[in-house]
Amino acid sequence: MVVVMALDATDADIAAVVATVGVAGGEAFVSRGLNRVIVGLVGDVEQFDSLNLRAMAGVTDVVRISVPYKLVSREHHETRSTVHVADVPIGPSTITLIAGPCAVETYDQTLEGALMARSAGAAVLRGGAYKPRTSPYAFQGLGEEGLRILAEVGEKTGMPVVTEVVSANDIAVVASYADMLQVGTRNMQNFTLLQALGACNKPIMLKRGMSSTIEEWLMAAEYIAQRGNLDIVLCERGIRTFDPTTRNTLDISAVPIVQRLSHLPIIVDPSHSGGRRDLVMPLTSAAIAGGADGVIIDVHPRPETALCDGPQALVTEDLPALANVVSSFAKVTGRTVALTRQPEVV
Amino acid sequence: MVVVMALDATDADIAAVVATVGVAGGEAFVSRGLNRVIVGLVGDVEQFDSLNLRAMAGVTDVVRISVPYKLVSREHHETRSTVHVADVPIGPSTITLIAGPCAVETYDQTLEGALMARSAGAAVLRGGAYKPRTSPYAFQGLGEEGLRILAEVGEKTGMPVVTEVVSANDIAVVASYADMLQVGTRNMQNFTLLQALGACNKPIMLKRGMSSTIEEWLMAAEYIAQRGNLDIVLCERGIRTFDPTTRNTLDISAVPIVQRLSHLPIIVDPSHSGGRRDLVMPLTSAAIAGGADGVIIDVHPRPETALCDGPQALVTEDLPALANVVSSFAKVTGRTVALTRQPEVV
Amino acid sequence: MVVVMALDATDADIAAVVATVGVAGGEAFVSRGLNRVIVGLVGDVEQFDSLNLRAMAGVTDVVRISVPYKLVSREHHETRSTVHVADVPIGPSTITLIAGPCAVETYDQTLEGALMARSAGAAVLRGGAYKPRTSPYAFQGLGEEGLRILAEVGEKTGMPVVTEVVSANDIAVVASYADMLQVGTRNMQNFTLLQALGACNKPIMLKRGMSSTIEEWLMAAEYIAQRGNLDIVLCERGIRTFDPTTRNTLDISAVPIVQRLSHLPIIVDPSHSGGRRDLVMPLTSAAIAGGADGVIIDVHPRPETALCDGPQALVTEDLPALANVVSSFAKVTGRTVALTRQPEVV
Amino acid sequence: MVVVMALDATDADIAAVVATVGVAGGEAFVSRGLNRVIVGLVGDVEQFDSLNLRAMAGVTDVVRISVPYKLVSREHHETRSTVHVADVPIGPSTITLIAGPCAVETYDQTLEGALMARSAGAAVLRGGAYKPRTSPYAFQGLGEEGLRILAEVGEKTGMPVVTEVVSANDIAVVASYADMLQVGTRNMQNFTLLQALGACNKPIMLKRGMSSTIEEWLMAAEYIAQRGNLDIVLCERGIRTFDPTTRNTLDISAVPIVQRLSHLPIIVDPSHSGGRRDLVMPLTSAAIAGGADGVIIDVHPRPETALCDGPQALVTEDLPALANVVSSFAKVTGRTVALTRQPEVV
Repeated sequence: MVVVMALDATDADIAAVVATVGVAGGEAFVSRGLNRVIVGLVGDVEQFDSLNLRAMAGVTDVVRISVPYKLVSREHHETRSTVHVADVPIGPSTITLIAGPCAVETYDQTLEGALMARSAGAAVLRGGAYKPRTSPYAFQGLGEEGLRILAEVGEKTGMPVVTEVVSANDIAVVASYADMLQVGTRNMQNFTLLQALGACNKPIMLKRGMSSTIEEWLMAAEYIAQRGNLDIVLCERGIRTFDPTTRNTLDISAVPIVQRLSHLPIIVDPSHSGGRRDLVMPLTSAAIAGGADGVIIDVHPRPETALCDGPQALVTEDLPALANVVSSFAKVTGRTVALTRQPEVV
Repeated sequence: MVVVMALDATDADIAAVVATVGVAGGEAFVSRGLNRVIVGLVGDVEQFDSLNLRAMAGVTDVVRISVPYKLVSREHHETRSTVHVADVPIGPSTITLIAGPCAVETYDQTLEGALMARSAGAAVLRGGAYKPRTSPYAFQGLGEEGLRILAEVGEKTGMPVVTEVVSANDIAVVASYADMLQVGTRNMQNFTLLQALGACNKPIMLKRGMSSTIEEWLMAAEYIAQRGNLDIVLCERGIRTFDPTTRNTLDISAVPIVQRLSHLPIIVDPSHSGGRRDLVMPLTSAAIAGGADGVIIDVHPRPETALCDGPQALVTEDLPALANVVSSFAKVTGRTVALTRQPEVV
Repeated sequence: MVVVMALDATDADIAAVVATVGVAGGEAFVSRGLNRVIVGLVGDVEQFDSLNLRAMAGVTDVVRISVPYKLVSREHHETRSTVHVADVPIGPSTITLIAGPCAVETYDQTLEGALMARSAGAAVLRGGAYKPRTSPYAFQGLGEEGLRILAEVGEKTGMPVVTEVVSANDIAVVASYADMLQVGTRNMQNFTLLQALGACNKPIMLKRGMSSTIEEWLMAAEYIAQRGNLDIVLCERGIRTFDPTTRNTLDISAVPIVQRLSHLPIIVDPSHSGGRRDLVMPLTSAAIAGGADGVIIDVHPRPETALCDGPQALVTEDLPALANVVSSFAKVTGRTVALTRQPEVV
Repeated sequence: MVVVMALDATDADIAAVVATVGVAGGEAFVSRGLNRVIVGLVGDVEQFDSLNLRAMAGVTDVVRISVPYKLVSREHHETRSTVHVADVPIGPSTITLIAGPCAVETYDQTLEGALMARSAGAAVLRGGAYKPRTSPYAFQGLGEEGLRILAEVGEKTGMPVVTEVVSANDIAVVASYADMLQVGTRNMQNFTLLQALGACNKPIMLKRGMSSTIEEWLMAAEYIAQRGNLDIVLCERGIRTFDPTTRNTLDISAVPIVQRLSHLPIIVDPSHSGGRRDLVMPLTSAAIAGGADGVIIDVHPRPETALCDGPQALVTEDLPALANVVSSFAKVTGRTVALTRQPEVV
């Protein structure tokens, strides 16, 4: 941290800053320029934060100069991590395709969706049983019955499953059915939920808050990590901007930036980013080309009757193109498409 | 709802839309222009949403024309509501000042903060016991011990108290100490929490999500209302924009807009909006002048040692000006300053 | 400026930074912490910018610590300025009401609009002859014919006039008719125009770019000032955010912030901020209460036939309320309403 | 357009809307639902805009249902266009690499930059002679001397050149040296400039305003097209969002969306989007994979001494990777890399 003193700061002001830092166990280095004095701090940044140096006499600004997350940072963990969902890797040497219906509606619809996913080369099955919806009058998901269907279909089609959890109280039951637990965009800063997931022994997919900075996102991952669970996959799903043309704006730059700042794998959700079926394929291509470790995609046998987010789901006729895009872009980026070794029992 | 057909939509496309709407129990009205056909829908909008008309052949766009919230809407509840926090009104004929420390740290600090608040004319005491923080390494609040201190200080200084709740599991204990429960900006779409608060018999202060549209905010209020609790006070606390100059951008227009759309009272948080002590007074003036039903303000006896958000707290020397601003702007807007009838027992 | 060195920066890296700064005529101060070295720079910041220190080996970050504008800064010009439009002051001790039609359409419409403005207490008449419009198919203004009408109506109703200029080529002709020249939001960074206005001997009203930071806005003012024209009035007119509810989001905090950073007067445009007639009065109240030095407001005799921005114009029945809001809020903020001494010759 | 009437609109209100539309030469279709009446309009949308129907009694909302641009729309021009810069195509079957220094500083630096560009496979040379800078104290470009250098270097290295124009007055001189004229992000809504470029006989590269919606961008292109110049290449260069991590956020979705809405070619600027050298390669890959018709990239022989935007320039050691990325991603997307047939005379 750097404390910038005002032009008219007195020696007493400077001494007070140095003393305050010292009491907090830090070291302060005073650097005098022609017009202005700057004080550099060394020690525990979080402790300095609570000192409110900015409120002291003669202080103009306080600038933080190191990242506030540790466990998920790449600074002390140079090698990028691979997280396993059951036997499926998500990491730097593979492209992992996760696909399935946005919401579990019925056994048949879920099975059809899973077969679609598998035919496109998916290694992991997605499907929502608890759906956070903007309106209390919209379909809220089937709950545990949905989990049961999803797990059964996952076993039948030979794919581990990922599903969303919206409350700390539900973690035990969700973890008993799912191979990976997803935190949705609206819960990215639900710290109660994050801390409880830190004590869970399943991998977590942490979606980016739709208006979260990359730093806030990594801090949310740090909440999970700090309680002991480092099996975290980040998922960029589009951010909120001024332009109403798309539902969200896919922040493709987040992929290389996160990979430089953190060792955690990062995947992209082209379905929720664009919110439109016709954007899924170009955004999938861009995501893989931009370095994503995988993509998560909505498919639906009959999107016109979907209870949730139908307009963005791929349909059966899109699947060969999806499979082709994933494999050809994986190849040009020097990766292999991740596979599951689980047998299909259909 | 209005379905806009494509230029080249066929008669069969149009008939399919009409039939789909009919099956869902709605009525469809076809209007043929020179180039284009428009289909107007009458019936239950939520049901139409799930039809995914947008995905049907020949459909270009689907436009919603009525508001998706009902219980909190002013359309069917013309008179603006007054919510009572114990005996203190928040509503259209008063200005209610809520003040106190951002976080409860110790009994002495809370008492000092409460006396500061009361001396500025506050009728309700604020103070946080559960603090959602961006960093897992930052001070997270005293928990139930903080609630106990807050309630004791509230009783001593004769002010009902408001405090944040961050998890559905904590509602019972928080409600046993507090007169109003606050939902913070990060939890505005924590639907599990909102639904549980709908079953609570205390008033709720619902802060706007920092990147939530006004419609999403009113939908969040609808989640609480739908479970039976209509004692909701909305709180505008600044939104996230591209400009880093302030912590958040106070959306002052939200005050008159919300008052036109909803019957619920709305207050403003000038402390968190600006994040800077020097902005609190001008933003408080603007909020009251713009029609807010109250303001909620951070005060702290020694902000330079505050464990949370010190730089934005007002200090003792600011209080006469605050009292003056509240009473003089209340007067010019034709309101009275809300008072509590509880005795001060200090 | 502060140069933050990487954890593994070598002594040679540090020496190179110091040498580079020295060659550029600056001084570098090396401060060694336990883990990290920080180099503080003193001298001409613009020169340092062009050194690209960020690209040097061992450099992690370069942080700027002083404001990049000088002439419009309050740092060296403590007293807030008053700008005169003909004989009408805009500054810290008055509230100046500027009003009139958005666009000059006909002589009669402009005269009616001017009489409306004057009856509400306006001291300056606004009216557009050159209209920058999003669509090339929309009404683009009457050009010089509009200027002629505006000047004639201004003289007749005893009010100096302000109008927009959209091209450096038009400055001479616009300045021959108008008492103040307005730079619109889309031209805030049209540097060719700004520099030409710096050589103009009329005051300038500089609207904030709809997505400009406060710093960029003050830099745009610096462009004008640098060429010799310091008679600049800043105008906050709403910024672009994610929320589609209003046309723009009035950034009320910009008023006190700009007044702390710059000596220039600042007014608010409540008409374009909200884009809705029903928001004009609450936003005008909030603007004056928040400390604005004036407001600029659209009025129109028949907004339903206006060629530009009709939905936001006040109508005749709104004028007594406007006059009352301006005078009562001016009073409570300790200001007087600015008047023109020019005679009305109608 | 669709006019949505209020729940309590009277028959007279509806008749008034119909009459107003009729007088303006349009047709109105009244559709009566159970609760609400909707009026569909057919005719000239721009004319309806000026009617201010929204201000009429009984009208709740007015919804536009067709795009407001015509000449650049794909609706009536199904085939995507190819624009030629001298002999180099930019269009749907090629990937065109444009590269060069951000600013022309000296003959030698420009020549070195051009050779770097050519060695990476560039077909068009970029270089700025007029630089719009946020600060009036920053380097503003060499002006016509810069144009002369650029043209000479272009001829020597066998590449047509593109350079920015910032004022209508400069168009003639810029067009006498350059093969394509660029409109920068800050001038995207400088309508005076756009209209003058419409009368120019050189192709135009129109960068997206950093906070412009896609619709506003296409309307800006329409301004050029309406005056007779349809040789327009759109350039996505990142938009402004809440996240300070990158200089701008590359809106990769804009590529497929623009290609669906307009027949004009669209390229991407990965250098200005990210503002960081380490993002250029992943963003270039993503852009081509996402369907862009080309990319424009900053290169510089010695970025640490660049007078403008040094930190984002690629250096010599990056060029083989750039050439490889362009050719390998072109191949997987079924395109060829665009070439110039001009001889290199170095």
